[in-house]
Amino acid sequence: MAKDVVEILKEIGKVGLNADGSYTRNAYSKEFFQAVDVIKGFMQELGMKITTDAAGNVLGVLPGNKPELKHIIMGSHLDTVEKGGLYDGAYGVTGALAALFALKEKNIKLNHTVEVYGFNGEEDALGGTFGSRAVTGLIAADNKLLNEGIQTYGHTVEEILACKRDLKNAKCYLELHIEQGERLDEKKINIGVVSGIVGIVRYKVVAHGTSNHAGSTQMFRRKDALVGMSKLIVKGNELCKKIDPDMVFTVGTITCAPGAKNVIPGRVECCFEMRQLEKAKTDALIAAIKAAAPEIPDCDFTFEPEMYAPGVLCNPKIMETLQTVAKTNSLSYVVMPSGAGHDAESMGHHIPIGMIFVPSKDGFSHCKEEWTSDKDLQNGVKVMSGALELLDKEA
Amino acid sequence: MAKDVVEILKEIGKVGLNADGSYTRNAYSKEFFQAVDVIKGFMQELGMKITTDAAGNVLGVLPGNKPELKHIIMGSHLDTVEKGGLYDGAYGVTGALAALFALKEKNIKLNHTVEVYGFNGEEDALGGTFGSRAVTGLIAADNKLLNEGIQTYGHTVEEILACKRDLKNAKCYLELHIEQGERLDEKKINIGVVSGIVGIVRYKVVAHGTSNHAGSTQMFRRKDALVGMSKLIVKGNELCKKIDPDMVFTVGTITCAPGAKNVIPGRVECCFEMRQLEKAKTDALIAAIKAAAPEIPDCDFTFEPEMYAPGVLCNPKIMETLQTVAKTNSLSYVVMPSGAGHDAESMGHHIPIGMIFVPSKDGFSHCKEEWTSDKDLQNGVKVMSGALELLDKEA
Repeated sequence: MAKDVVEILKEIGKVGLNADGSYTRNAYSKEFFQAVDVIKGFMQELGMKITTDAAGNVLGVLPGNKPELKHIIMGSHLDTVEKGGLYDGAYGVTGALAALFALKEKNIKLNHTVEVYGFNGEEDALGGTFGSRAVTGLIAADNKLLNEGIQTYGHTVEEILACKRDLKNAKCYLELHIEQGERLDEKKINIGVVSGIVGIVRYKVVAHGTSNHAGSTQMFRRKDALVGMSKLIVKGNELCKKIDPDMVFTVGTITCAPGAKNVIPGRVECCFEMRQLEKAKTDALIAAIKAAAPEIPDCDFTFEPEMYAPGVLCNPKIMETLQTVAKTNSLSYVVMPSGAGHDAESMGHHIPIGMIFVPSKDGFSHCKEEWTSDKDLQNGVKVMSGALELLDKEA
Repeated sequence: MAKDVVEILKEIGKVGLNADGSYTRNAYSKEFFQAVDVIKGFMQELGMKITTDAAGNVLGVLPGNKPELKHIIMGSHLDTVEKGGLYDGAYGVTGALAALFALKEKNIKLNHTVEVYGFNGEEDALGGTFGSRAVTGLIAADNKLLNEGIQTYGHTVEEILACKRDLKNAKCYLELHIEQGERLDEKKINIGVVSGIVGIVRYKVVAHGTSNHAGSTQMFRRKDALVGMSKLIVKGNELCKKIDPDMVFTVGTITCAPGAKNVIPGRVECCFEMRQLEKAKTDALIAAIKAAAPEIPDCDFTFEPEMYAPGVLCNPKIMETLQTVAKTNSLSYVVMPSGAGHDAESMGHHIPIGMIFVPSKDGFSHCKEEWTSDKDLQNGVKVMSGALELLDKEA
């Protein structure tokens, strides 16, 4: 019996639902594993061979007619941010299964073995894309977050490192996801064919001023670290837009010391994050910010690289296939980068990847307002199942 | 035997000394009461009648030749900020005692009864100038900080309210203090004759933006509360300098929600503090900031008055007396406002006040670098004892 994506998602929606309508399924949480159990049920119905690993991932494998062919992998994650929505991640797992149900309904049995992952810990808790990085061997043994956090979940670092799999038998990885932005929804476009996942560059930026009495220190004598940092944030914002309107620049955290109402801030620390597909662009932005900093008289600045997640490009041939399927199904589409990180990125460092976006109403994500219409959800699955059929004709 | 201010301060310096050379004598702490005990010893030597109260204050009274005359009150505070210096507060108490020792040395017995207060809690913990506000009846029964904090110290709100004294028998209040700014030190001026204590106005300012995904939300779509707040802080700074170079504007606290590196800040909260002797000036500044806020496109702002401590003017006649004494002693002086709050402010709402500043090396205060030379400390005491002699000739 065919299972529609809306129907499968409804089952996931029974797990981790908060009183305010948001969802919380943190990595390794009881609610996360309840979602895994829901997914296992559907995998069983599809006749998949199911395994789980120490990283918390669930994997279903559906053998193809020709075991000698490389596997087509699909998937996304089953964890959510704190008070997130129903669709981020879960749509990719349920949509992959729905695509297989759709083929089954049409009595199509693929030649390629197909795998579906429900990853754990894609959200930030364990450094982001935790489950898919474990599977693809992208977690370093000396990873600080991992070493500090993994015991909490009853696992050892060695167990996580052992989750690495061989990807030589993998043809490609495909992921369905909500856009988490407004581009598709605003222009009423059905499908986003993702061109790549932007690189993420983070710097720890510290403004060093002089803490002093807020009453007795005249304005012209001050070395106010918060005034200086404010100027640098405004400047960074301007520079980002000027260098490339498609790049994004975010200062999401700020701490101010000593942090008293009657003391001039002597030290302000922020995280400067910038994202773009091309590293040259983020390089240009941070260089321009660093060049602007000495012009700010209020304080001195230090810049310390904190994180660099290189972007990955989607496979042009898979992108073409996705566009062909969209056209065949009379669905409008646009080629666009993904500003958010995804499990596809972990895979993309090893095998060709393709990603399909569907609209997010008003661009909301990571909150209870996150919403995608049933029709849009189904359109994405149509593109996925169509792509499976076309890719299955290849070697 | 005469006690020099340096000698008395040295005894205080044995109490609350931290390993790094800073001092911590928080309100009601063991170290605070150790300092009270030191002061009591010197008061006893002077033949003062000593009392303490529930607010933690110590008071020494030295009867004058003419009990019918109003009392001359001196004093300052014995508590410090966390990791503060030796001089802030303690100098005012020890300096007052040193002035009395100097008169005693010269066999001068005043006609006026003289009182010396060592106040508790002048620093921020209990809302600031806690001890002197208790004595002068400026603490409201419904004071939130008091109601939440006072039980911790083994006292009831009623006991604190009962610390209020009658000031009808008080002629004036005089306070010696380090400047806590650079004006005197920079220009090598011996004495600051304080014209008044600036008013303090605080607003809770909140920037309301829209929290969203830092990767998938294009720059032109953002409502970034931190970018908006940064612009307002820079603007407030500019406006302050423009409206009045003697006014000060400080944003000492900032919190950013949700406070994640990968989420656009949706809400940023700051405290905007402004200080000036004239309320018209701070009124003009907050009005200008409020007028500028709607021009900032990134977010909306709300302003909520949080605190208003009206400034007080020093008594012109006492200021004249202090200048006369400075001249007589060949000390250079300047008339200047106090940007910091002091216990004198509590008194100033009831009786005439005068304040004497001495230089702070490089303007440092509230830190271990706080320093004033022995000579400068002694100069302040000279002006205080001279002023006592002159004021004693009045009714």
